[in-house]
Amino acid sequence: MLNENEMFEKIKQSFERQGLMKTLNAKLITVEAGIVKISCEFSENLTQQHGFVHAGVATSIADSACGYAALTMLADHFDVLTIEFKVNFLKPAKAKKLIAVGKVLQSGKTLTVCDGFVYDETETKLIAKMTATIMSITIG
Amino acid sequence: MLNENEMFEKIKQSFERQGLMKTLNAKLITVEAGIVKISCEFSENLTQQHGFVHAGVATSIADSACGYAALTMLADHFDVLTIEFKVNFLKPAKAKKLIAVGKVLQSGKTLTVCDGFVYDETETKLIAKMTATIMSITIG
Amino acid sequence: MLNENEMFEKIKQSFERQGLMKTLNAKLITVEAGIVKISCEFSENLTQQHGFVHAGVATSIADSACGYAALTMLADHFDVLTIEFKVNFLKPAKAKKLIAVGKVLQSGKTLTVCDGFVYDETETKLIAKMTATIMSITIG
Amino acid sequence: MLNENEMFEKIKQSFERQGLMKTLNAKLITVEAGIVKISCEFSENLTQQHGFVHAGVATSIADSACGYAALTMLADHFDVLTIEFKVNFLKPAKAKKLIAVGKVLQSGKTLTVCDGFVYDETETKLIAKMTATIMSITIG
Repeated sequence: MLNENEMFEKIKQSFERQGLMKTLNAKLITVEAGIVKISCEFSENLTQQHGFVHAGVATSIADSACGYAALTMLADHFDVLTIEFKVNFLKPAKAKKLIAVGKVLQSGKTLTVCDGFVYDETETKLIAKMTATIMSITIG
Repeated sequence: MLNENEMFEKIKQSFERQGLMKTLNAKLITVEAGIVKISCEFSENLTQQHGFVHAGVATSIADSACGYAALTMLADHFDVLTIEFKVNFLKPAKAKKLIAVGKVLQSGKTLTVCDGFVYDETETKLIAKMTATIMSITIG
Repeated sequence: MLNENEMFEKIKQSFERQGLMKTLNAKLITVEAGIVKISCEFSENLTQQHGFVHAGVATSIADSACGYAALTMLADHFDVLTIEFKVNFLKPAKAKKLIAVGKVLQSGKTLTVCDGFVYDETETKLIAKMTATIMSITIG
Repeated sequence: MLNENEMFEKIKQSFERQGLMKTLNAKLITVEAGIVKISCEFSENLTQQHGFVHAGVATSIADSACGYAALTMLADHFDVLTIEFKVNFLKPAKAKKLIAVGKVLQSGKTLTVCDGFVYDETETKLIAKMTATIMSITIG
């Protein structure tokens, strides 16, 4: 297993290969064993028709946070693939910044289940709640 | 109820207010009663770490397609809000273009349930399958 | 709002009208504001083909626990209806007893979102995780 | 691969080991490649508090139908395990009989995704819609 700094570096390199994260102007904030945090500032480029952040943006950063949280629990030669997720949108995404936290709920050899939480900039208002199932794949 | 041309215009105006759809370079293709189609061309701005289109992109256009499909079934003074969705990712999004089709499965006064399908550019390879619950809200 | 004893009595009366809960030999354990616990002992009447408790049993008691947890947050003339749920099965249900805990995550006038947890008899092994969306309906 | 009669027999034997299916008085109706149908008659033993069939019953037979539909696509030494499902409840389960149809949407070596439909006795009123992810496991 990698230590936390190595893990952050490994995930940062992967994160920077995600064109979408750059497009959303998302930032990788923290990486711990089983927990990854990604943020994304409000911009008019990210809205739905009422001017709030589109559900797809909250989902995108929550998905990346959950995938990388799963990755922290796996040996170094594995990568991850999202099999499915479900998201409940609890409050309109009226926020200066969205903060997505992915947390491993159950880690297995083949499958990892993560909870994803999307908060506003204060990290107190829960905007969306994801449950994601993630598959381990070997890199080749 | 609006006729199909009026419905297309109403939804096109709403679509164009979605900053995210512009950012993803997504296009509103067709609007019929209960069915809406949105496409999005592959671009390196939309990728995950393996160079395929990010799950969040397929989800974003499927969510908009489902929401607008729901909207076609409602009286003119209603708008829609996504309550929750679940997406299964069936195949890696290796495609020149993603085509999302939102279809109303059950339309009610308060809630509409839609199926969302995301295909590749041939509309034959099913890449992702969404089920979305959408709430009617009154405008103004 | 009812006090906790009145709430328990109200929910117990409703629980006893659920023929399925009797068939599963399920028991209403506790009722607090926003949290309801229901248990169900292992029996060969409740198994799937490998002799573990069927996913449908864990789901049934978790659904009732989530529905009643939602009900504790509503005024007295409301009842609840499950709109949709998603369940991840984390471990095989090898347990002498299943304990389902429904917890309100977000309570609204029309919709309530609950987390449901299904544990083994020690309440330490998490067997299944539900997220449920529940609608308020007026009675009579 | 087994022929359809052999497949029906294999699945019938497994179905009869499911104590819950007996408890619900559920019946295995048909088995085809990728499609399995299970029914369950209304009984006061299966109700929720309003006298309709409990969401957990519709879910249980849909889960078994989806699992067995997945099994029809796998080589003989595999069995199946439900990883997760999501169900939308579209109409109150006021029906003399519930008919659950499990259909394979995508079959893979490790994972199968199925659609599950729960109808009333006329097979025209759609009461619930499931999407299930099922894992292949090797027996013995």
